[in-house]
Amino acid sequence: MARFFVAATNIFGGVACLSTKEAQHLRVLRIRRGEHFTVCDGQGTDYICRLRSIDEGGAEAEIVSTKPSNGEPTVDVAVYAAFSKGDKLETLVQKSVEMGASRIVVFPSARCVSRPSAASSITKTARLQKIAEEAAKQSGRGKVPGVTVSPSFEQAVKSAAACDVGLFLYECEKDNDIRSVLRSRADYKTLAIMSGPEGGFAPEEADYAAEQGMLKTGLGPRILRCETAPIAALAAVMYETDNMK
Amino acid sequence: MARFFVAATNIFGGVACLSTKEAQHLRVLRIRRGEHFTVCDGQGTDYICRLRSIDEGGAEAEIVSTKPSNGEPTVDVAVYAAFSKGDKLETLVQKSVEMGASRIVVFPSARCVSRPSAASSITKTARLQKIAEEAAKQSGRGKVPGVTVSPSFEQAVKSAAACDVGLFLYECEKDNDIRSVLRSRADYKTLAIMSGPEGGFAPEEADYAAEQGMLKTGLGPRILRCETAPIAALAAVMYETDNMK
Repeated sequence: MARFFVAATNIFGGVACLSTKEAQHLRVLRIRRGEHFTVCDGQGTDYICRLRSIDEGGAEAEIVSTKPSNGEPTVDVAVYAAFSKGDKLETLVQKSVEMGASRIVVFPSARCVSRPSAASSITKTARLQKIAEEAAKQSGRGKVPGVTVSPSFEQAVKSAAACDVGLFLYECEKDNDIRSVLRSRADYKTLAIMSGPEGGFAPEEADYAAEQGMLKTGLGPRILRCETAPIAALAAVMYETDNMK
Repeated sequence: MARFFVAATNIFGGVACLSTKEAQHLRVLRIRRGEHFTVCDGQGTDYICRLRSIDEGGAEAEIVSTKPSNGEPTVDVAVYAAFSKGDKLETLVQKSVEMGASRIVVFPSARCVSRPSAASSITKTARLQKIAEEAAKQSGRGKVPGVTVSPSFEQAVKSAAACDVGLFLYECEKDNDIRSVLRSRADYKTLAIMSGPEGGFAPEEADYAAEQGMLKTGLGPRILRCETAPIAALAAVMYETDNMK
C-alpha cells in the first residue's frame, strides 16, 4: 500500500492532512477519493487512511485504523560515512535506509578526495535527505532517517563513540572481525558504523577513534569499496541482532 | 598492490605474460620496469611479480614469489537475479563480487519490466562481466566470477536448487527468515540466493521454486529494492559462515 510521511501535528480529529507535494504524489499514484493508503507520523504509528478530498492546496484523508509501524529495527544503528566522489553517498544513503539505519552522518576525513564547500555540502545534504525520505517510504520505515554533516572527523568520532557500540571499519584491522566484535558485546541498544573514504582511513585516524573508545573492526580479506563496506556491516548487524525477520 | 588476472597458461617458466590490454592498464597505473604487482591465475594462486619488459604487444613479468589467493570465501555462493531496469544489475554485480559471490546468473521472471532481446542480452552480459572483472581486481578476489544468462525462470530455479542450500528471497514469506533458514542447515558448501525483479516474484513462481526444493526466505519487515535484497542476503550468508574475517 502506498505510504506517506505526515508530521504528527497534521494528524488530528480522525483526519490526516497532506501537503501540496504529497497530494501531487497521490495523483501520480492515481489514488482517488475513497481509496486507501498508509500515512505514517514518523514516530512509530501507521494510519490506514481513506482519501476524502484532494485539490491544489493538499489532501485530506479519514483515518480508518491505526497500528504500530513495523519497519523499525530493535537496535538503533547510525551510519557515519566519509565524503566520497560521484554518487556513492546516494547509493549508501538509499541502501542504509532500506536496511534500517536510524540516521546517516557524513564527515570529512584525511584521505577524502571530495571535500565539498559549506554551500555545496548544504545542497548535497538536502539531496541525500530527499533520497532518505524516498527510501523510507518505499521500504515501509516507521521514521525518516536524518542525514547530517559533521564539521570534522574528530566530532564525528566523538558522536559515534557515544553509542553503546562504535564500529570503526578499518581494512588494516586483522585481529577483530565484525562477528567477533559484535558477539563480544551484549545488550547494546545503539550502535554506530563508521567507514572511510575511497583511500581508507589514515592510521592516525584509526588510533584516534580507538582512543575515543571505538572498536577497530575488519570485514574480511576482500577489500570493499567505500560505499559497500558500511552496507555489508549494516546487513551483518541487522542479521546478528535478529532484525532480518 | 595492483592486481591483474592472467590465464594460467600464460604463467610458465617463472614468468607471467600479460596481454596488450593489461599492459595498457600497467601504464595507466604508472608501474615501471623493476616495480612489483600481483598476478592472479584466477584459480586460487597469487604471484608477486616484478615487471621485466613492456611494449605495445604486452608485458612480461618475473615471478618473485607465490602464495594462495586469500580473497575466496569457504562457501560457494551463486547470486541469481531477475532482469531489472536501469543500472541496478550493474550495482548488484559489482557489490556481489566484492562481497564474495562465486557467480551471477541473470534470468527472466513473470513480473520483469525489463526483458532484453537475445542480442541486447549478450551486450548486457558482456558489460556485466567487465564490471565483475574490475570488481574482482579491486577487491582482491582469487577468481573472476562469471556472469551468465539463464534462458528461463524454470531453468534458473533448477540450477539454483542443485546447490546444497537454495534461498528463494520472497517478501511474502513471513515464517522463514534468513537466519532461521541458514541455522537450520549445516555443512553446506554451495548456496544459491535467488531474487526477483522490481515487482517481486509471482506466487506461482514461489510455489514452483519450493516444489523444486528451494527455501522461501524472508528478509524482515522492510521492503528491499530488487538489487538491495540479494546484497543484504549475501552479506548475511558471509557473516553466518564466518567469511567476514
